[in-house]
Amino acid sequence: MLKKTELLYSGKAKDVFATDDPAVLWVTYKDQATALNGKKKVQISGKGALNLQISTLLFKAVAAAGIPTHYLSTPDQQTMLCQRCEMVPLEAVVRNFASGSFQRKFQTEPLLPLQPAVHECYYKSDALDDPFANDEQIIALGWAKPATLEAIHALSDQVNLVLQAQFSAVGIKLVDFKLEFGWLADGTLVLADELSPDNMRLVDEATGESLDKDVFRKEQGPLTPVYQTVLDRLRGAAHV
Amino acid sequence: MLKKTELLYSGKAKDVFATDDPAVLWVTYKDQATALNGKKKVQISGKGALNLQISTLLFKAVAAAGIPTHYLSTPDQQTMLCQRCEMVPLEAVVRNFASGSFQRKFQTEPLLPLQPAVHECYYKSDALDDPFANDEQIIALGWAKPATLEAIHALSDQVNLVLQAQFSAVGIKLVDFKLEFGWLADGTLVLADELSPDNMRLVDEATGESLDKDVFRKEQGPLTPVYQTVLDRLRGAAHV
Repeated sequence: MLKKTELLYSGKAKDVFATDDPAVLWVTYKDQATALNGKKKVQISGKGALNLQISTLLFKAVAAAGIPTHYLSTPDQQTMLCQRCEMVPLEAVVRNFASGSFQRKFQTEPLLPLQPAVHECYYKSDALDDPFANDEQIIALGWAKPATLEAIHALSDQVNLVLQAQFSAVGIKLVDFKLEFGWLADGTLVLADELSPDNMRLVDEATGESLDKDVFRKEQGPLTPVYQTVLDRLRGAAHV
Repeated sequence: MLKKTELLYSGKAKDVFATDDPAVLWVTYKDQATALNGKKKVQISGKGALNLQISTLLFKAVAAAGIPTHYLSTPDQQTMLCQRCEMVPLEAVVRNFASGSFQRKFQTEPLLPLQPAVHECYYKSDALDDPFANDEQIIALGWAKPATLEAIHALSDQVNLVLQAQFSAVGIKLVDFKLEFGWLADGTLVLADELSPDNMRLVDEATGESLDKDVFRKEQGPLTPVYQTVLDRLRGAAHV
């Protein structure tokens, strides 16, 4: 039986621990929601367990499509076991429809369809406030090699297809999402981090309502019933 | 003899007039310097003529290298005749060394060499404050087609080689520059706008001093002696 050892990293929504297996990390999903890059922070009972279950379901769907991920297993209601990676210091965003910062920056109509889907990269740096960067800036500054960026774009497109299929089957529009990638010790680039409504924008196709962290960002009501709806719908489809 | 007719566009540094030839524009270089996107504006006697002469010299060098441009002739000390284009609504920036907004955004050391040179595109929109955009955003929002962006990047690299050769021959480091492109009526994409120290960062290789509009932006002294130095050096080399 694997043992959790020292805390390696405490993030906004997850804590990451080492284990007695150097290749395996113990990731705890926290009952915490943050917005405005951490400036707004609230405890929300049950959120961690919901995100863990949604993430588990979606990592399994992505892996079933042949996309390499860091996911190993979900031993209890707060914990995901993952393969240890060296993280690429980028947030890889995919946008199928205009929303959030994109819509504000370019003053588009809400949910303007983006064809083909738009990729954006943000450099993970608290000191620089996670700046948006184009591929040539990233390469010149040494944050990723050209082949790594190409692989991230290709894997992001594959993940997009899997997630769009999962959500459209249950009447949900996948507006945009943020991915992170990491290197396994053997040099494989894998999808890492989490796959939850904390990192995606989801819209109910029937009602147009948000089913993601925007409910918290915009103070539209309690978050857990919304995340529960997403989980229930995905689970319902999985059982069909 | 060509006649200047109605004013089509009055910009920060140039006025653009129609002529009695529908394919030819009459461009007047103004004695005006602006910074902070036009918020700071000063009349500087002689600046227009200097920029016109520098632009003329550099457009001829670029054209001599086989790169298509809008340049036709320089009939007097304030006027450039240009082919009429439909402008691509993008500013195409090339950076050989980190400076300005790039250096501030990514907190690099001053004049960090960027290898390969970094391309950036900004969408020309006063309402949106000329936002930085990556290629996929530009394509999704319909501002340029993928083939146009590719052509802009390739032409920008060719212009970079020509300008680097011109400036390094006279002891000047070409730090970065901004280009604009347009379509001729026959569908040819050509280099347009101007090629002057208003749109480039130039550093004296011997002294490290700025030889461009940063002198005005940073209030380091009068601008015309600096532009005169650039013109004199380029002319000296041209006569060798």
